[in-house]
Amino acid sequence: MSSFSRLVRFLAKDGKTYYGDALMPSGATDMTRVAQAKVIQGTPWGQHRVTDRIADVQKLLAPLAREDIRTVRCLGLNYEQHAIESNMPIPKYPVLFYKPVTSVAGPFDNIPVCAAAQEGEGLDYECELIAVIGKEGSNIPEAQALSHVVGYAVGNDVSHRDWQLKRGGGQWGLGKGFDGWAPFGPAIVSSKLIPDPQNLRITTKLNGNIVQDSNTGDMIFGVAKTISVLSQGTTLLPGDLIFTGTPQGVGMGRKPQVWLEDCDVVEVNLEGVGSCINKVEFAKTKARL
Amino acid sequence: MSSFSRLVRFLAKDGKTYYGDALMPSGATDMTRVAQAKVIQGTPWGQHRVTDRIADVQKLLAPLAREDIRTVRCLGLNYEQHAIESNMPIPKYPVLFYKPVTSVAGPFDNIPVCAAAQEGEGLDYECELIAVIGKEGSNIPEAQALSHVVGYAVGNDVSHRDWQLKRGGGQWGLGKGFDGWAPFGPAIVSSKLIPDPQNLRITTKLNGNIVQDSNTGDMIFGVAKTISVLSQGTTLLPGDLIFTGTPQGVGMGRKPQVWLEDCDVVEVNLEGVGSCINKVEFAKTKARL
Repeated sequence: MSSFSRLVRFLAKDGKTYYGDALMPSGATDMTRVAQAKVIQGTPWGQHRVTDRIADVQKLLAPLAREDIRTVRCLGLNYEQHAIESNMPIPKYPVLFYKPVTSVAGPFDNIPVCAAAQEGEGLDYECELIAVIGKEGSNIPEAQALSHVVGYAVGNDVSHRDWQLKRGGGQWGLGKGFDGWAPFGPAIVSSKLIPDPQNLRITTKLNGNIVQDSNTGDMIFGVAKTISVLSQGTTLLPGDLIFTGTPQGVGMGRKPQVWLEDCDVVEVNLEGVGSCINKVEFAKTKARL
Repeated sequence: MSSFSRLVRFLAKDGKTYYGDALMPSGATDMTRVAQAKVIQGTPWGQHRVTDRIADVQKLLAPLAREDIRTVRCLGLNYEQHAIESNMPIPKYPVLFYKPVTSVAGPFDNIPVCAAAQEGEGLDYECELIAVIGKEGSNIPEAQALSHVVGYAVGNDVSHRDWQLKRGGGQWGLGKGFDGWAPFGPAIVSSKLIPDPQNLRITTKLNGNIVQDSNTGDMIFGVAKTISVLSQGTTLLPGDLIFTGTPQGVGMGRKPQVWLEDCDVVEVNLEGVGSCINKVEFAKTKARL
């Protein structure tokens, strides 16, 4: 259904920003270190075509521009082993929350930690498979759900556990929505290339050490089931992102607990897609709250 | 800061859709029954100007087109008397959740209730003041916050209590995000005309009977404080909507409880802004879940 294989957005060496279809580096198995891409004319949800013009990549950006992203949905507690480590019951329905579009960032951007998010403790990582909706629909049957996915990416649902769990009145909005707390990429890999999203290794490395290591087969609600449930009476639009939850091994679930600190480097990786590698950057300003 | 007084979007009698600056009907105090508007060229967040061309209004639509809306934020438990009727503690920080952009609808549209939302019980209304962000900003001091508001509207944060509270794993995403469950309007009344958003009567009528009747002065976090807190480390964009919570009198808080039924008519009204009047429309299809 997509005209591209691996959608990237990038700052080119000519100083301009383009959408492109990434050229796989020789011998590479993922998109993390893409050097060149075929320029795409137009935008992913409008008229567009992959041209034969090859551009040199200076820096990969979020694979979708802010104006091409609509609603960012996220699931909580969607891996069985993660629900267990969180001491939460296995959910009967998807646990749905949202992030604002301003939380989206590029695969190699720093993760900004504002003064408010330096209060309390609990800065944490969550590697997640992201399903990108490419075709509008509602009341989508599970059997047709994957045909609405244009491709997959990996992202980090950066979370602040105190704001999420203790200060939000039970709602997770405050603790997960800060600017840049949803880095994703490095590419949106076409669903043509990933026929089965439920058998992919997914990992997080914190400063080079593996801290999450699971497989998307451990999801409680797989991508197809998730799309079917979330679309009941609800229209999913091209440019909607669905973060499908994180496996066990988050900082909150470790003994002792591990919280991200200034200058830590987090790498989230999804098999066949690549990595987002983001450095934690504490703002130097004082808290206001 | 805005070039308009009362921003509307409407289907005109010529069959086209326009943005416009509503002309107050003679003797009217609000925008609910607007008949004419000056056509606006351009879109509210881009280059635009109010022309002298007057168009006849056939039907008012949501005051912003879907593509001109960014993130829809909502507060829970933000009126003191409503927190009390809900048996919840007064929150220390705003209780933040989101609605998808597909939930936005026009001030006189029907409220569609899909098969899934006909399961269980608890279909409820919530009248709310909506602050519409017109100027980008983050880390906004409370004293400057109102300068980021282009205007105010009224809306209904339609909610399904079973999906919201019992089936969502504690998160409110599933029970508040169905298509058309955020009707708003009838106009975005410029903040020039509403210098103090904390002294406005706000009401709901269910089939003509008043069921909510309060004043925005009962808010726990006023508009300025809300914007200041929500903008910490978080960029608010033109086209962001902030639903600022509902006062006491929701169906869930009544004794006995009152749930919306097929063909009920709900009118939410904000002083100086006008009403959204929406009929509940149960879908005829069977449940799928």
